[in-house]
Amino acid sequence: MTVELISIGTELLLGNIINTNATYLSIQCAKLGFTLYHQITVGDNEVRLSDVIKTAQDRSDIIILTGGLGPTSDDITKETLAKVVGRELVMDEHSKERILSYYKQLYAYDTNKVLPKGLELITENNWKQALKIRDSIVIDNDNGTAPGYIVEDKNKIFILLPGPPGEMIPMFENHILPYLKKLQDKVFLSKMVKICGIGESKAETMIMDLIKSQTNPTIAPYAKSGEVHFRITAGADKEEEAEALIKPIIKELKARFGNNIYTTREDITLEKAVIDLLINYKLTLATAESCTGGLLSGRIVNVAGASQVFTEGFITYSNQAKIKYLNVNPDTLNTYGAVSEETAKEMALGLIKTTGCDVAVAVTGIAGPDGGTKEKPVGLVYISCSIKGKTFVKRCNFKGNRAKIREQSVVAALDLVRRSILEIYV
Amino acid sequence: MTVELISIGTELLLGNIINTNATYLSIQCAKLGFTLYHQITVGDNEVRLSDVIKTAQDRSDIIILTGGLGPTSDDITKETLAKVVGRELVMDEHSKERILSYYKQLYAYDTNKVLPKGLELITENNWKQALKIRDSIVIDNDNGTAPGYIVEDKNKIFILLPGPPGEMIPMFENHILPYLKKLQDKVFLSKMVKICGIGESKAETMIMDLIKSQTNPTIAPYAKSGEVHFRITAGADKEEEAEALIKPIIKELKARFGNNIYTTREDITLEKAVIDLLINYKLTLATAESCTGGLLSGRIVNVAGASQVFTEGFITYSNQAKIKYLNVNPDTLNTYGAVSEETAKEMALGLIKTTGCDVAVAVTGIAGPDGGTKEKPVGLVYISCSIKGKTFVKRCNFKGNRAKIREQSVVAALDLVRRSILEIYV
Repeated sequence: MTVELISIGTELLLGNIINTNATYLSIQCAKLGFTLYHQITVGDNEVRLSDVIKTAQDRSDIIILTGGLGPTSDDITKETLAKVVGRELVMDEHSKERILSYYKQLYAYDTNKVLPKGLELITENNWKQALKIRDSIVIDNDNGTAPGYIVEDKNKIFILLPGPPGEMIPMFENHILPYLKKLQDKVFLSKMVKICGIGESKAETMIMDLIKSQTNPTIAPYAKSGEVHFRITAGADKEEEAEALIKPIIKELKARFGNNIYTTREDITLEKAVIDLLINYKLTLATAESCTGGLLSGRIVNVAGASQVFTEGFITYSNQAKIKYLNVNPDTLNTYGAVSEETAKEMALGLIKTTGCDVAVAVTGIAGPDGGTKEKPVGLVYISCSIKGKTFVKRCNFKGNRAKIREQSVVAALDLVRRSILEIYV
Repeated sequence: MTVELISIGTELLLGNIINTNATYLSIQCAKLGFTLYHQITVGDNEVRLSDVIKTAQDRSDIIILTGGLGPTSDDITKETLAKVVGRELVMDEHSKERILSYYKQLYAYDTNKVLPKGLELITENNWKQALKIRDSIVIDNDNGTAPGYIVEDKNKIFILLPGPPGEMIPMFENHILPYLKKLQDKVFLSKMVKICGIGESKAETMIMDLIKSQTNPTIAPYAKSGEVHFRITAGADKEEEAEALIKPIIKELKARFGNNIYTTREDITLEKAVIDLLINYKLTLATAESCTGGLLSGRIVNVAGASQVFTEGFITYSNQAKIKYLNVNPDTLNTYGAVSEETAKEMALGLIKTTGCDVAVAVTGIAGPDGGTKEKPVGLVYISCSIKGKTFVKRCNFKGNRAKIREQSVVAALDLVRRSILEIYV
């Protein structure tokens, strides 16, 4: 079955917001084994939206529309689709009830606001959101007032979802996903193999034979700054069969990439994998950052519960700070420079002394745009990790602008911590 | 004139990458005063791409196509458009020369690789990139091998650009923008008013009368986490006239928003505005972060040249670290807790003592998902800024998930530094 996405909203056409909904829904369709040939973005305009819906109806089986379900007169997705399928709008009492209780709750929670008498703040416009296309399935919105809808019409299926991702994604996951799964006679299962420390093109080349010969499961690379993710998707009659199809591929990838793979779970990030390793071996971590300036520790703290293993970090952006807090020898800085193997090493070792942590990671580099020389170009970054008396140093030559270089440095630092722990403990 | 965007690439349909090209080009079109009604994404498939081009040709004046210009047989954008406009592909000697010198340079720079004899690595496929649609304008690619093209055909204009943003954006800015500007009989000028410290809906309400009555200039809000940006765009016969149309709107916005506006320049970020203030008043800054865990300092270091005013920072994620490095009184932590006005204040004051900086900013809060109580819910964040013996504290109640709360905390901290400096010095 083919799916077509229609994103509705003038704010998308003006570039006010990035269309992450299309990306999210495309991934979901790929995981479900549906084929997606078209993504369309159009404004809140009846003529143009109507045309786009009719075109989609002619060439696709399932049409997912996001946006334009709000309470204002600009929001016309439901009204336009109703005309295309030739059905009237009728009041849905269940939605009306839900909208009322949503507002009641909203005002009750916000103690600064007095609940207006008879909830006058609910205007006539709000009740517009309780209208449904006749004989459609209403999907409750647990994070807002606009319900979603499924309209089955002459072998075609229209799915209407609210535009804000915070409302759309939970609605899709809780209600639309089970509905769509039933439409598939096959079960589709997907796993993610996440790789770090190998470039994208090299990683792809390493399994090009598998990618080229893929039918079921399929292998698709997903680009992510400094990492490479491969999604393996298999379709089968039963989940166990799909699992059985995926298993040998994962095994093969593990054989080829070894411990460059940091997880085969979709929900595990690199920082989470590192924190889990630290927790597992009961190790504490501290950070010392120069060019990344806090991005590394900031990413570690992304993980809820990081406080179990991470208690402190230093931003030593100046030489003075490196001497003062990390006890880096001024001679080292003078002789080898702030961006050098020697300084990185001393930063990590000093960090162990200052904090008493088990694992110390230090980053020093030239993020640009200025400060590069022929010997030490922009993008040169030294990362050091000290653990149990052993100190590892990695020299990196990153390409790209300041932001890209700093981002890659963070990934490389997390990866070095991971590899150092594996080196010592596994 | 109307513009239509066509993004080409299977990776977009699989959700492997987010379509930031569409967002970027939409903003550019809005700034140029062009009307954009449709954004289309389609795969590298001749039949479907051909259909999409024909539809665009019927309803739009300028069609911008991105992607599918690479050297592989999958890349068919140029070939498909050639068929639609009924022109043959011819070898462009200039592009051939450029591709050759691009590869020469690539191998010469990379000292690890030996330049292959006669550059054998340039396969026949690479020469495919030197083919142009007859009578089209070739646009040099300064960041890759795939040139862009402008094809003028029966009152319609097709613009073909490479897919990677790193190649597309410079090509657009350097070559396409001047071309498109000539097509406009009017000059369009746009300015950005960036606001911090007021929520999006409140900010919009404050100028709703201006937004509702807008014709020329237009005012469009752009959402950005923790900030509100308004783009003011005016069209006129001459640049000075457009400037004159914008000026009173900027003045009115300044009157209404006061020093909630941190810049009226598009290229100035909040962190850059803060750094500029610090440089201007010759002040040094230090940071102490708990829940943001380095994101604040990381964002400050985004600014190239931040080292002039920012030398050091602390991640004091644990209570112990707050006591050890910032001299926070253990009694304060016991009595009021780590997330309190008192602790935030002591963190900032301790930071001044430890580092000798002029301006100290400290953040402590509950980012969740756990750790919240009825008195201190998830999202409660205290920010303190100490400067010249005066210490300001701001209590924030943020909504959203862990990442959102931390992001808003960073913005609020930068904003507090900005306001504190203005309070003392202006």
